[in-house]
Amino acid sequence: MSLLEQTIAAIGDLHAGAMQAARERQSQLTKPPGSLGRLERLSVQIAGIQGKVRPEVSRKALFVIAGDHGVVAEGVTAFPQDVTSQMLANFAAGGAAINVLGRQVGAKVVVVDAGVVGDAPTGGSVIVRKVGRGTKNMAVGPAMSREEAMRALEAGIEVLEGEMDPPLDLVGVGDMGIGNTTPSAAIISTFTGLSPSVVTGRGTGIDDAMHTHKISVIERALACNRPDPGDALDVLSKVGGFEIGAMAGMMLAAVARRVPVIVDGVISGAAALVAAGLAPKSKDFMIAGHRSVEPGHGSALAHLGLEPLLDLEMRLGEGTGSAIAMHVVEAAVRTLNEMATFAEAGVSGAR
Amino acid sequence: MSLLEQTIAAIGDLHAGAMQAARERQSQLTKPPGSLGRLERLSVQIAGIQGKVRPEVSRKALFVIAGDHGVVAEGVTAFPQDVTSQMLANFAAGGAAINVLGRQVGAKVVVVDAGVVGDAPTGGSVIVRKVGRGTKNMAVGPAMSREEAMRALEAGIEVLEGEMDPPLDLVGVGDMGIGNTTPSAAIISTFTGLSPSVVTGRGTGIDDAMHTHKISVIERALACNRPDPGDALDVLSKVGGFEIGAMAGMMLAAVARRVPVIVDGVISGAAALVAAGLAPKSKDFMIAGHRSVEPGHGSALAHLGLEPLLDLEMRLGEGTGSAIAMHVVEAAVRTLNEMATFAEAGVSGAR
Repeated sequence: MSLLEQTIAAIGDLHAGAMQAARERQSQLTKPPGSLGRLERLSVQIAGIQGKVRPEVSRKALFVIAGDHGVVAEGVTAFPQDVTSQMLANFAAGGAAINVLGRQVGAKVVVVDAGVVGDAPTGGSVIVRKVGRGTKNMAVGPAMSREEAMRALEAGIEVLEGEMDPPLDLVGVGDMGIGNTTPSAAIISTFTGLSPSVVTGRGTGIDDAMHTHKISVIERALACNRPDPGDALDVLSKVGGFEIGAMAGMMLAAVARRVPVIVDGVISGAAALVAAGLAPKSKDFMIAGHRSVEPGHGSALAHLGLEPLLDLEMRLGEGTGSAIAMHVVEAAVRTLNEMATFAEAGVSGAR
Repeated sequence: MSLLEQTIAAIGDLHAGAMQAARERQSQLTKPPGSLGRLERLSVQIAGIQGKVRPEVSRKALFVIAGDHGVVAEGVTAFPQDVTSQMLANFAAGGAAINVLGRQVGAKVVVVDAGVVGDAPTGGSVIVRKVGRGTKNMAVGPAMSREEAMRALEAGIEVLEGEMDPPLDLVGVGDMGIGNTTPSAAIISTFTGLSPSVVTGRGTGIDDAMHTHKISVIERALACNRPDPGDALDVLSKVGGFEIGAMAGMMLAAVARRVPVIVDGVISGAAALVAAGLAPKSKDFMIAGHRSVEPGHGSALAHLGLEPLLDLEMRLGEGTGSAIAMHVVEAAVRTLNEMATFAEAGVSGAR
């Protein structure tokens, strides 16, 4: 079996016993039943994922996977392609939003170059797993070969595995890549069946004319490649990206190790669709951190059956939505674990 | 001048210069303009409140103010009145949700007895500022005298002032009090003009019959007391609560000291209406932490012109919504303060 096949085969079910025990504990904590709302449901999901009535959230990591995209040749972005490399250096220096938010929430930030055109910054803090130096232009042919798509997925699996000693308790998966809302919209359109005009947004901030053009580029990419939504590897290779493949692989590896995965924005949502296409059960181990401003994100989450925890009108990527949501997930687990029960506190229950 | 009058007189305006400088700094940080969404707007508001381009968020406190309510004699609650005292002991022992969430976000939890029927737990960790041992039944007459309402407000001012050496950077204001969604709905109905049937919820969890009864009790309280929405002290005394008055006073004192106030759930929202009734400019210094399940909460926030940061379907009170929102507020400030600019990081801007 390939590493990808082994990873998918290792994906199990949520632990029903742990979930039931967590529900019972929630009913005994010193609060009106259900009054912590989504925190309670989230705590039950995490108990089911980790298979523990008292889940753990001490070891947390935010992964930022970078890649470049040949489709930028079509003029679909507001920022030049060099920015992907420049932002890798910014991540390495600790100056990006994800560095700030990772420090705040107590999560390690792991930066991966899965296929940036330029060289990764020297110094070794970026994990270099280049599948190539940027994808090909998907508007005129496949973004990558099927073999490269497989390598991207397995790079993600290996990076996640490399961070599991000691094991992580919670991960967020974010992206960096100038142009990557374009393949993401193509992926989301393919899996959901929605038109590119519905799922395509403005990325880093393009005007009406460029937005119309971006939609037409995605329509061309879908028309010339005809990705098969029943074959996630086909979708990834034809209209995906190296970072998107690595992110999907990373999600599958986390799920196989029963680590809850916080999905970030629209690129992370597209990667989650690829992961769920390869292993449908992986959806049960995912948490939607936030709802991005990008219209395709809501469509992707709805298709996955995930309801976002936050809506802060963000559209930055990098895992920034996952990072803030990590605090909410930790709040869910800590209230389950640390609150006193009615009996322990000597508090009367409802009449 | 009374302490209340002095406090109201000390309330200033948002600092326009600091806000403009914060906006300019946001435009130079390494991200597409506007991509941090509400975090950016929040950072500008905090800059305006504190009067600093780089605001501070290190000293944080969550206030939990407790009181009892004579209106529970009408049978409007699912839990017995003793629970208010029992929960004070739970707060003092660190076993309640607010203790867990306060520890997580690095905020001190300050518990105040503003008018509980029973004695506060021994040991001194609860600040005792009893205005009375529970209010009177507002369904048959005023909940308290105008003089008691003033004392409740000033107790809140004094408690907040007592925590300002060294000064706090950020506060959340929460509640505990069996029955207190009933006066809160009456206050919200009075200020917004909405009918009790629209703004009254199920509190800790009552059935349809008790909900219908609760609405009729609020209608009776409003009919017999005729609170004047143009006179916030009148509203507080006739259909308020000791903790609600103290919470409003605390909000005004924080605003006067230019400390951002995170409003919690429906009781905190009712207190914010009282504060804004006394000092309309105080609204500019408030942040709505979350949207509670209680229907009156949304009405109160809309009346105040506040948009909630989170919607986690919570309805616990205690300041729990403020506590989680405190992480988001801190994220807004930390990204403003700590992110690298395009120039510092050598990253290209938009074309």
